[in-house]
Amino acid sequence: MKYFADIQVGDTIDVGRHTFNADEIKAFARRFDPQLFHLDEVAAERSHFGALCASGWHTAAVWMRLMVEYQRSEDDARRARGEPVAALGPSPGFRELKWLKPVYVGDTITYSTEVIETRASSSWLDWGLMTIRNAGINQNGEPVISFISVAFVERRERTA
Amino acid sequence: MKYFADIQVGDTIDVGRHTFNADEIKAFARRFDPQLFHLDEVAAERSHFGALCASGWHTAAVWMRLMVEYQRSEDDARRARGEPVAALGPSPGFRELKWLKPVYVGDTITYSTEVIETRASSSWLDWGLMTIRNAGINQNGEPVISFISVAFVERRERTA
Repeated sequence: MKYFADIQVGDTIDVGRHTFNADEIKAFARRFDPQLFHLDEVAAERSHFGALCASGWHTAAVWMRLMVEYQRSEDDARRARGEPVAALGPSPGFRELKWLKPVYVGDTITYSTEVIETRASSSWLDWGLMTIRNAGINQNGEPVISFISVAFVERRERTA
Repeated sequence: MKYFADIQVGDTIDVGRHTFNADEIKAFARRFDPQLFHLDEVAAERSHFGALCASGWHTAAVWMRLMVEYQRSEDDARRARGEPVAALGPSPGFRELKWLKPVYVGDTITYSTEVIETRASSSWLDWGLMTIRNAGINQNGEPVISFISVAFVERRERTA
């Protein structure tokens, strides 16, 4: 992770991409969202979705994994260059999550992120707050998910 | 599901409860949130969380499963009483998700939901929009997650 001071509004990240297959869609749904249109092709055809599609929580959770992997590889690259690595703190949450289109079997979702706000905190002197807008777009260029999340990022030095 | 007309602001649901164990916390984290404090007890002790805890996405996904199971058992009970069952449509998303406290190994989270708004739609004549506030509270009475979600609920009859 960059230090808080090095993060700018407008910074963008190509987080990664993922192709959803039927087995993983069903496996996630069995554990966390056992609705028929996420579990069974025939039932899904008869549903308002028209075909088997991923739980919206699955689409969001894949973003999380890709984001963790992205940060890890960025941190590894920083260490390899001899640069310091800032800590990423806990996320207090997110807002305005929208499932804009279903994610069907075989869809490839490309996730990207843009920094939309940075804010110092008067109560957390070691940390700054970064607000990012996250988007997932399918192979036809259609947005399928968007949400805004907030995370604490370590400051290089306290501003007392 | 009740029909839209039968849902009132202030209605509450006891969605269910779940105790998080270390194996499932790690299994979710390996697939969707492979940060060390969700994967490894020793690393978690050294982290800002102080002990192994669940991914926030895991805490949210368990709500989804309990909600699906709750709706299914309610629908079964309605059918057993010979009552009609309304359809629950897709969710356009949710907002203001807050992870308020970590969920540690052995914590039992009780999820509840309150209807905070009902709204007819002029463009979706078969459906009404229901807004619900969802909360998860641990065994000490401390809130660990809260969010507001929106869902389409079938109307008994169109209002043209």
